[in-house]
Amino acid sequence: MEKKIVLLPGDGIGKEIMESAKKVLAAIESEYHHDFVLQECAIGGDALDRYGVPLPDDTLKACEEADAVLLGSVGGPKWDNQPPEFRPEKGLLKIRKGLGLFANLRPVKSFPSLLHASPLKEEIVKDSDMMIVRELTGGLYFGEPRERRNNGEDVVDTLAYSRQEIERIVEKGFESAQIRNKHLTSVDKANVLESSRMWREIVNEKAADYPDVKVEHLLVDAAAMKLVTNPGGFDVIVTENLFGDILSDEASVLTGSLGMLPSASIRTDGLGIYEPVHGSAPDIAGKGIANPIGMIMSTALMLEYSLGMKEEAKAIETAVMDCLEQGYHTSDLNIKDGKQMNTEEITEAI
Amino acid sequence: MEKKIVLLPGDGIGKEIMESAKKVLAAIESEYHHDFVLQECAIGGDALDRYGVPLPDDTLKACEEADAVLLGSVGGPKWDNQPPEFRPEKGLLKIRKGLGLFANLRPVKSFPSLLHASPLKEEIVKDSDMMIVRELTGGLYFGEPRERRNNGEDVVDTLAYSRQEIERIVEKGFESAQIRNKHLTSVDKANVLESSRMWREIVNEKAADYPDVKVEHLLVDAAAMKLVTNPGGFDVIVTENLFGDILSDEASVLTGSLGMLPSASIRTDGLGIYEPVHGSAPDIAGKGIANPIGMIMSTALMLEYSLGMKEEAKAIETAVMDCLEQGYHTSDLNIKDGKQMNTEEITEAI
Ligand SMILES: CC(C)[C@H](C(=O)O)[C@@H](O)C(=O)O
Ligand SMILES: CC(C)[C@H](C(=O)O)[C@@H](O)C(=O)O
Repeated sequence: MEKKIVLLPGDGIGKEIMESAKKVLAAIESEYHHDFVLQECAIGGDALDRYGVPLPDDTLKACEEADAVLLGSVGGPKWDNQPPEFRPEKGLLKIRKGLGLFANLRPVKSFPSLLHASPLKEEIVKDSDMMIVRELTGGLYFGEPRERRNNGEDVVDTLAYSRQEIERIVEKGFESAQIRNKHLTSVDKANVLESSRMWREIVNEKAADYPDVKVEHLLVDAAAMKLVTNPGGFDVIVTENLFGDILSDEASVLTGSLGMLPSASIRTDGLGIYEPVHGSAPDIAGKGIANPIGMIMSTALMLEYSLGMKEEAKAIETAVMDCLEQGYHTSDLNIKDGKQMNTEEITEAI
Repeated sequence: MEKKIVLLPGDGIGKEIMESAKKVLAAIESEYHHDFVLQECAIGGDALDRYGVPLPDDTLKACEEADAVLLGSVGGPKWDNQPPEFRPEKGLLKIRKGLGLFANLRPVKSFPSLLHASPLKEEIVKDSDMMIVRELTGGLYFGEPRERRNNGEDVVDTLAYSRQEIERIVEKGFESAQIRNKHLTSVDKANVLESSRMWREIVNEKAADYPDVKVEHLLVDAAAMKLVTNPGGFDVIVTENLFGDILSDEASVLTGSLGMLPSASIRTDGLGIYEPVHGSAPDIAGKGIANPIGMIMSTALMLEYSLGMKEEAKAIETAVMDCLEQGYHTSDLNIKDGKQMNTEEITEAI
């Protein structure tokens, strides 16, 4: 099958780990007789340096025409003092909004061979296996007005949602629960926010369409607690944009596998951007020692979700697991009696 | 000294643990020759049941005239389906706003004898000792408009702050850092929110007035991660209302001492409401087995912050520590070779 894939290496370690993704794609291509047409484009600080904007029009256009997009990572101290419109992260926000990628899926799973690296006690974290479904193009991230007022004396941001925006992400939450363990936790702040009360109503309405899914409502503060005290108690979490940002990052460090975790930002027709959860790690960029597994797992997620290649995705995941079980690891991990490798070596091993 | 203290037992276990606070106050009264004039008032579900509103005017007035206020806890399933204006939590929001209690202080400290109850590994959590300073009367909790629009098709909430509101809480953060370990972490989402950018500017301006305090900015998602991976890396955290709600609840479960933790909601002239961090625990209400330590530690905090009785506060804290070290505990805790007690027994022991 021919598939068009746009690669957005971005900043920091993004370039190095994207090389790993390319090698993995090449291996899948020859093993399964696919034809991946790759096109590399600029985003983030890299795009700012080369074109003066964090998201060039050409990049957006190429992504819109592709079957799927792989992203390395975006941002770094070099651009931290830029005005808001000219910061690398703006490229990320614009591409999400521009492509209408309203659903961010973040699976969090404990890797048995990495449990010792978890900050949590092993008995607390060992059965963790959850999926966070975060709304990605609404809420406080895009609501208007967002401005200073009265000569800079006051400031407002706006948390705005339409019924349709809430409905489609809630449906995504239910669908995700249906293909997993049929337990959906909807997170809101309905004791304070009007938007959360509407969110909760819509979840309750939609529940009728998914009678096989058990639904539970949890306040965001209680959810932040439960992630730490009982992460195994979650299956699918669905929540709005900012709550999802906070909770998914909190969840990502629970299992000690942050460097391993992938994410998908998708829309209804299947187009999606796939990227590792970790950041651009400017401190180790360029040294060839970055952990490429988050990027490689993102590649697997892309094959499964956007390209319909379940078997190919499974093959990659199995290769990663085998590799970890044999004790191969990068310098960010510490596997007892393991063998430390650089980015290129571990990619080859996988 | 004569001091007027209003007691708001509230709902669930609130009534039982307030009895413990009264006993502790009586002990301090006779030991240190003070005269505490206690007045009990209604709030929350209790007030709804008796007066039809979650915060009767008389309660607000009594608190305004008092030197300090002790609160048990508010809320419970009985009132969960009430309309927003008639929910117990509304009483809490109204009293905070009505009294202008703009600063919520939440100390989180690990108790050596309870470390085994922490979900975190002992080496990660053992040096945790932080204070979260949360803005309590602004932001998304009170901003207008907060409403449905277009026949219920759209919804908005508003995150609003004035310069003065941000300044006074940031000052509180710096002052708290000055009397602790001189390290302030300001948490915002400046890569997305205009209000966070103004927040960050004000923190940087104020930093000049506190040259002895080391200031650091952290994004809220990164803060949610760091609380789990390196809680000992914080001294004072200062942040806006909703971020503070989420992060302080997350922090409260780190050390395994949730039932022990106090909080203070204060304003500039010293008036404050002191309450335990844990909820109303409707499942065990009325059984006489609730853990009163959070309430007792809140009483100590009240003596120290609102009544200027440092020595008396210290005496209570020492009594609690001694009691735990001797293995006395309530049923929510599990101390090896300890002695389990009910609410009344452990209060007497303390
Ligand atoms: C970089 C930032 C704008 C972004 C967000 O908050 O969405 C990031 O934290 C993420 O979660 O992808
Ligand atoms: C009950 C609720 C409105 C309240 C809040 O969100 O402030 C509570 O969670 C708290 O932190 O005291």
